[in-house]
Amino acid sequence: MLGSMMKRDLLISDLLVHAGKYHSDTENISKETDGTITTTNWGQVAEGSRRLASALGKLGCAFGDRIATLAWNNVRHLNIWFAVSGSGLVCHTLNPRLFPEQLIFIINDAVDKALFFDKTFMPLVPGIRDHLKSVDHYIFMGSRDDEVLAAVPDTLFYDELIETGDAGYDWPQFSEDTPSSLCYTSGTTGNPKGVLYCHRSTMLHTLIVAQKDTLAISARDVVLPVVPMFHANAWGVPYIAAMCGTTLVMPGPGLDGDSLVDMIDTYKVTFALGVPTIWQMLLASARKKGSKLETLERNVIGGAAAPSSMIIEFRDEYNCETLHGWGMTEMSPLGTLNQTKAKHADLTTEEMVNLCLGQGRPPFGVDLRLVDEEGNVLPHDGETQGALQVKGHWIVETYYGKDADNLTEDGWFDTGDVATVDADGFMIIRDRTKDIIKSGGEWISSVELEGTAMGTAGIAMAAVIGVRHPKWDERPLVIAVRAESANVSEADVLAQYEGTIAKWQIPEKVIFADAIPISGTGKMLKVELRETYADAYMMEGA
Amino acid sequence: MLGSMMKRDLLISDLLVHAGKYHSDTENISKETDGTITTTNWGQVAEGSRRLASALGKLGCAFGDRIATLAWNNVRHLNIWFAVSGSGLVCHTLNPRLFPEQLIFIINDAVDKALFFDKTFMPLVPGIRDHLKSVDHYIFMGSRDDEVLAAVPDTLFYDELIETGDAGYDWPQFSEDTPSSLCYTSGTTGNPKGVLYCHRSTMLHTLIVAQKDTLAISARDVVLPVVPMFHANAWGVPYIAAMCGTTLVMPGPGLDGDSLVDMIDTYKVTFALGVPTIWQMLLASARKKGSKLETLERNVIGGAAAPSSMIIEFRDEYNCETLHGWGMTEMSPLGTLNQTKAKHADLTTEEMVNLCLGQGRPPFGVDLRLVDEEGNVLPHDGETQGALQVKGHWIVETYYGKDADNLTEDGWFDTGDVATVDADGFMIIRDRTKDIIKSGGEWISSVELEGTAMGTAGIAMAAVIGVRHPKWDERPLVIAVRAESANVSEADVLAQYEGTIAKWQIPEKVIFADAIPISGTGKMLKVELRETYADAYMMEGA
Repeated sequence: MLGSMMKRDLLISDLLVHAGKYHSDTENISKETDGTITTTNWGQVAEGSRRLASALGKLGCAFGDRIATLAWNNVRHLNIWFAVSGSGLVCHTLNPRLFPEQLIFIINDAVDKALFFDKTFMPLVPGIRDHLKSVDHYIFMGSRDDEVLAAVPDTLFYDELIETGDAGYDWPQFSEDTPSSLCYTSGTTGNPKGVLYCHRSTMLHTLIVAQKDTLAISARDVVLPVVPMFHANAWGVPYIAAMCGTTLVMPGPGLDGDSLVDMIDTYKVTFALGVPTIWQMLLASARKKGSKLETLERNVIGGAAAPSSMIIEFRDEYNCETLHGWGMTEMSPLGTLNQTKAKHADLTTEEMVNLCLGQGRPPFGVDLRLVDEEGNVLPHDGETQGALQVKGHWIVETYYGKDADNLTEDGWFDTGDVATVDADGFMIIRDRTKDIIKSGGEWISSVELEGTAMGTAGIAMAAVIGVRHPKWDERPLVIAVRAESANVSEADVLAQYEGTIAKWQIPEKVIFADAIPISGTGKMLKVELRETYADAYMMEGA
Repeated sequence: MLGSMMKRDLLISDLLVHAGKYHSDTENISKETDGTITTTNWGQVAEGSRRLASALGKLGCAFGDRIATLAWNNVRHLNIWFAVSGSGLVCHTLNPRLFPEQLIFIINDAVDKALFFDKTFMPLVPGIRDHLKSVDHYIFMGSRDDEVLAAVPDTLFYDELIETGDAGYDWPQFSEDTPSSLCYTSGTTGNPKGVLYCHRSTMLHTLIVAQKDTLAISARDVVLPVVPMFHANAWGVPYIAAMCGTTLVMPGPGLDGDSLVDMIDTYKVTFALGVPTIWQMLLASARKKGSKLETLERNVIGGAAAPSSMIIEFRDEYNCETLHGWGMTEMSPLGTLNQTKAKHADLTTEEMVNLCLGQGRPPFGVDLRLVDEEGNVLPHDGETQGALQVKGHWIVETYYGKDADNLTEDGWFDTGDVATVDADGFMIIRDRTKDIIKSGGEWISSVELEGTAMGTAGIAMAAVIGVRHPKWDERPLVIAVRAESANVSEADVLAQYEGTIAKWQIPEKVIFADAIPISGTGKMLKVELRETYADAYMMEGA
């Protein structure tokens, strides 16, 4: 049939071309590693990225090469993102919180050709350099610096490199299925696995996650992504900001509460995104400083569940709407966001907070299902718990370098979470599949039990694991760490559960420990705990 | 390089699958041709569309067949849209306001296989039927009706047809480049030309036009598309509503002011979209009825420029934000929308109204440029006028059935408009290329001159055309129609121009006429006027 519409590939470089042409004087704010502030605009970012792309080409980086970064959220990192992906290279964001041996594994596995690094992470480089097999270029993200040159001989300097690039560089056109970026997941077991995003998946994520029922970003916003650009693409915010012509406020290394409150108040931030621990620090600082965070209209909490007290404090003290989200590196990352529907307009304040505590509903582009252990699909009734599986336009199919895809036989990705989904699509994460406790055929959420244990006065940290039990297959066991000089008892902890959950869900036992083992990215290593305490209920014949 | 993301085609059926799964109980309101109201929900629309798709297949409609509609905005039309496009057929929306000979041309040109029609348009069918070469099935959009059967023998009835379909029908999967829908442009000269949209272009339009800086639609909205589904896809609203799980209020034939005010107040409409004449009638009705349109937060005016008085009345009397938009059938249709940026926060009320009078800025996905008569690209300085050309993901390349594309040599589509664009991307349509008046090497906008003439007391309608002039090549001429029993003079009209524009732009002459010729879609036929009055300045040697 004759007749056609224009067809253009969906390319990341087009976001920046649009920002540079239609939002050229919209400013971006960047806090550098030395604490100074750089103010640029989208016109300058567009030019800087073209120059850098050109310079990387001259350096010998070729289509498809992986280029790694060890960097904070700052404007050089922003230029690198667009220059690398836009020119057909692959932007590989490294998590600097990983142990050196993990970084070595990841860089070698990715076969990275170049490594950009911020000064903060310079001390990491000498220790790993001798083990890296593929890195030809080390590029310091700043101007010439003798200290850096001494620590990392032969390093190049970003500010010099970019001068060698051509401002008139033309972004190459290629298939939207071309890989654009790479991010490794930080599992608690086994080697990290790489998720290789492509232009199409990234662009569709950008187009949808910008919408009013997801992040709702516009050219009238000033957005502070506290979530790092090395953590699941900063939830897609830098791409969305370019598309919308939004001011980005990039906090650099300043992730403490005081720095963030200052950034919000100074640059009139309207919207900020981060993990719960960030918001705890920020609220403490705002209270101390007496800031009312006047311009902050909305914030997104992701990465872990936020307590209701935090949502209420933002609402009542700061007139700020908190949106709970959920995602995974494997999902680019957005899976769900807690945006209400028209039917919720008449909810009471308390009902609304309860709704907000869940992880929300999927936007168009993500589909959810729950399955039982045999793979049978379970109902979305808000009560039935099942393994959460997902499908959609920006979800991993095959991990980087693997031969086989990672999906179920019928093409779904298993998230490793146990969840409920209600008839409106609102999803609540109940536990990790491997952490849920299976007691007498029923499932008990370790997450919920941990929350209650950590609410006990005098408890600094608590983990709850399922351990073998002669009668019930598994029973929950609490491993708790006392706060300094606290003398809280087992009975104190167990008393916390009375009346909050069904009796059969209450753990029988609390074991006090000096510490709970933690991974490089701050996750509790429950595998170790399960080994150590495997026979806690068997030994005593409980 | 190994590693990949899931890849799924962007298909219109997926919008409805999403709405049916995650927004099943969200209601849609439909006013039927007989004035009754049908309330359904997205779950029912999803099922109805599956049934209808199945029934059309059983009827012999095959992949790629064109299926025409002559219908209002109502729920049967909504089901047809999704059933036809979703099943790989092409939904061809006909404009019932066209003359019968134009409908015959268009249906034959499209080679439509079936024709759905609402009762309102039943009288059109007998007169065109004998001239239609390809239509095998006439389907009345209602239940069995003897009057219809008498007028259109052998017609099928939608309500019976849909019962023959299978509710368990599976939407077929096919390439996103598959044609989805067809709409003919209503030019003022020559035969209408078809724009053949595909799934990809429609989906990318949907994903972006939903965003906060374009239509900003969410699951909390109740949307009234007054703009017809046969007019440039109702500006994409039905697709966006399915994607967002938004309540659609479809007004059927009730496009008069009173009906619209009632719909808004009864169904708590938050957002409505239509052309300026609709809003004139609606405002008059609201004044008369004393309605404050309390739930209406925003409206979009497109299709023609809106006067500032209208924008101010909506703002001051109804607390309703008016967004000016611009698009074309060839652009799916959205080209620009007047959403402000952060830099506009401090504009005065008057400055803001002035900004709102323009057509706004392009979203990501549409690129604009201005060129002069030699094709040289002109600056975006807000002052330089040029032919407006566009490029993007949802813009026509080749009209339906044509051999060659319709683009410039370097791949841009010429809109036929003359415009200015400022450094922020804000575009103002100054005139149609063929209507602009070229006087002594300078361009004068006929649109601006018409607006002033129509502002003269006693003038019902006015057209301004460029006519040959011995000295200046062309000069503007006003053709005016007096309001009933008004005796406004040429001098009265010309006096309106004093002080509002440069002296050299003021027309020399006003000719009074009984009427101005109008096309089937309400556009002034300036071609005829230019023929009639070609020598108005030559004859008198002015």
